[in-house]
Amino acid sequence: MRTLILSGVVMFLAVTAIVAQQAPAPAGGGRGRGGGAPPGINWPSPPLADGPLMIDTGLVRPIKIAITKGLRQPWSMAFVPDAAGGFATLVTERGGKLRIIRNGVLDPTPIDGLPADIQASGLAGLMDIQLHPKFADNKLVYITYHKRQAGAAPAAPPAGQGRGAPAPPGVITLVRGRWDGTKLVDVKDIFTAIPSGNASRILFLRDGTLVMSVGYGDPPQANDGNPNPETMPPQDPKELAGKTLRLKDDGTVPADNPFVGKAGYRPEIYTLGHRNILGLAINPVTGAVWSVENGPNGGDEVNELMPGRNYGWPVVGNGRFYLGPRVSVDPFRQNMEPPVAFWVPAIAPSGLAFYTGDRFPQWKNNLFVGGMRQGEVPRSGHLERFDFNDKWEELHREGMLRELQQRIRDVRQAPDGALYLLTAEDNGALLRIEPGS
Amino acid sequence: MRTLILSGVVMFLAVTAIVAQQAPAPAGGGRGRGGGAPPGINWPSPPLADGPLMIDTGLVRPIKIAITKGLRQPWSMAFVPDAAGGFATLVTERGGKLRIIRNGVLDPTPIDGLPADIQASGLAGLMDIQLHPKFADNKLVYITYHKRQAGAAPAAPPAGQGRGAPAPPGVITLVRGRWDGTKLVDVKDIFTAIPSGNASRILFLRDGTLVMSVGYGDPPQANDGNPNPETMPPQDPKELAGKTLRLKDDGTVPADNPFVGKAGYRPEIYTLGHRNILGLAINPVTGAVWSVENGPNGGDEVNELMPGRNYGWPVVGNGRFYLGPRVSVDPFRQNMEPPVAFWVPAIAPSGLAFYTGDRFPQWKNNLFVGGMRQGEVPRSGHLERFDFNDKWEELHREGMLRELQQRIRDVRQAPDGALYLLTAEDNGALLRIEPGS
Repeated sequence: MRTLILSGVVMFLAVTAIVAQQAPAPAGGGRGRGGGAPPGINWPSPPLADGPLMIDTGLVRPIKIAITKGLRQPWSMAFVPDAAGGFATLVTERGGKLRIIRNGVLDPTPIDGLPADIQASGLAGLMDIQLHPKFADNKLVYITYHKRQAGAAPAAPPAGQGRGAPAPPGVITLVRGRWDGTKLVDVKDIFTAIPSGNASRILFLRDGTLVMSVGYGDPPQANDGNPNPETMPPQDPKELAGKTLRLKDDGTVPADNPFVGKAGYRPEIYTLGHRNILGLAINPVTGAVWSVENGPNGGDEVNELMPGRNYGWPVVGNGRFYLGPRVSVDPFRQNMEPPVAFWVPAIAPSGLAFYTGDRFPQWKNNLFVGGMRQGEVPRSGHLERFDFNDKWEELHREGMLRELQQRIRDVRQAPDGALYLLTAEDNGALLRIEPGS
Repeated sequence: MRTLILSGVVMFLAVTAIVAQQAPAPAGGGRGRGGGAPPGINWPSPPLADGPLMIDTGLVRPIKIAITKGLRQPWSMAFVPDAAGGFATLVTERGGKLRIIRNGVLDPTPIDGLPADIQASGLAGLMDIQLHPKFADNKLVYITYHKRQAGAAPAAPPAGQGRGAPAPPGVITLVRGRWDGTKLVDVKDIFTAIPSGNASRILFLRDGTLVMSVGYGDPPQANDGNPNPETMPPQDPKELAGKTLRLKDDGTVPADNPFVGKAGYRPEIYTLGHRNILGLAINPVTGAVWSVENGPNGGDEVNELMPGRNYGWPVVGNGRFYLGPRVSVDPFRQNMEPPVAFWVPAIAPSGLAFYTGDRFPQWKNNLFVGGMRQGEVPRSGHLERFDFNDKWEELHREGMLRELQQRIRDVRQAPDGALYLLTAEDNGALLRIEPGS
């Protein structure tokens, strides 16, 4: 393996001719589509170098990035012990495969044991993966996925046979299985949420229960005749859409959930008023649940999730419909939780991790968020780092790895103290980040 | 001149070794300074190539960038007719020189006729330059600068002689002169505002009056014992700090200013409640005055300035003190104007121009804002483009020219329909942008 030394500036001079060929010129003028929305900007992410790469960041110079390629739209990862006393990385691919990487090498054979009825379409499919907190003893693995509805045809017709009628959206489902060292066994759906094209992340809390997000999208774009945002699903306590749920590790409802026994409320609900949560993490100091949520056009949020609280979507927020009007007239209301941090313009955040290891003392307790934004040239996918004061108020955020022009889907701290990223690309990769000196 | 073809990705591989040597490693851990603020990230902008450069943007592929180097902290520019029927570009340098560029070539000799008492220190010095709307007839040129207070020593002591006592801040002053084709003559201060280390931009309105901004900084950072933000200078109608002013072209007050004759109000005031305005432009369709304003840590704003209105600083806003707490508890209030657009995190905007020319049909009536943000590696200085719908609601913003890693101080459309930029660098440059194909 040859190490490329790139001093923070970088870049892929060797591949630019290829990139230029791949990127068609955009069509037409600035307001060509639908009388209002701007045209899409078509610019594929350039191929990654093989690595390892050495690049500078604001505080750590350089970092070393080892790259494992061959993943197709990787979505989430979990770390399982391997036979040698180290660990291997399980990676979900949205299309419906579970892969394993050992010592930086992707096993060409997917892991057996996933549910057979994963419906991969749009942004849906195989989603998050998490280990039970007592995984060392019970080997339990939890996965969220979109389950094909009974009787529905497979979503992706064979090539050349046309699209047919669109399949109904898959049902966001929590499945539990057991890792036997080479595959998943005893796989069983333990909770069924709702049909949805949006995402679902999961996170175990310190009390052994888990939080599961159920995404909801946008209300209709027209301003006139909209349904009242205050009665839409994310605000409706009888619905699971646009919520986080709290469940026991067998998928049942804990007796101490905030709305248990309250008429008109689903007892699974932990928090209300979310759009599409794409990252969950435990604050290592306070123990609080933090989340990151995609806004519409602007208004991406980091939130601290407190049981029973309402986070406002789509009643309050800082985003806009893609045709221009604000989604919410008010950026905040007294009875709705303001974000810990937000982004305007959007970065399309996905993946969330606090760094708690010893390998990057400069990053201790910093928060990392992946960015998947498209529509800019060069591509604006990157990794965002937050530094907070002792009250968890934001001090600074640093956009990192913009040189790579890769959309970042997931961020995890591995058992070895390295920071692991997954790129949200068809030709996706695992990036393993450690200090470069 | 050799043309570099850079396909939007790229950059400056040849200079990275130099850059790495220039960038010292940051000191210490994530919370090393003052018990709360993060350490500064020291990363000089890399040198620009000589150009011309061909690079891709989202909608225009490629653009051609011609580069004129040799400017030291250039701040603003104006276009004056030259003898050949074309135009030359006058450029202010913050340090106190007025330069001229003809056909892409910087004249090594500065222009004569500036005031002798420009006080360049901190971020202050020679600021904005604008031509009178009837410049073709009257040759009048307007400039803002920080004027050394009477009796104060020059701000910059000779090298090696120490700093001595800091000079009191210069007084923001509007000066008018006449361009005789080679120099400024008949130069006269026509309005004196306040001592301030903050910026001042000027803009002529369609009625022949001009708007002049007078920047104000941050209230004290501690949360306890702060003065009431509602009585601080930007909210105090008896003070000029944190305001825009409207003046006649001789520096006197128009009789139809919003607060003329109102007790307790300075009659010069056009709008209230600003932090530090670093760009002013006329919306070419509506005729409204638009501004761009630096927030503290987050909360940079684009505003539409309406006479007599209050834009909220420091009572409302989306920014934070550098130690973490929000400056304003509320992001908005009913009697204060919300921004047209804002940024969180900050981009440190400077320079504002609507593109109205024919050379970039894709950018017609788009808004361009320079970005000067520091503290990221690679440097995050860039040019931001906004596209709006017919109600001037934001559709999209595109971060452009990030590859160059240059902070952008000013943006203007030149008489030839090209877009001109100035970089906010010690080794600054004029960038002339035209279609590349």
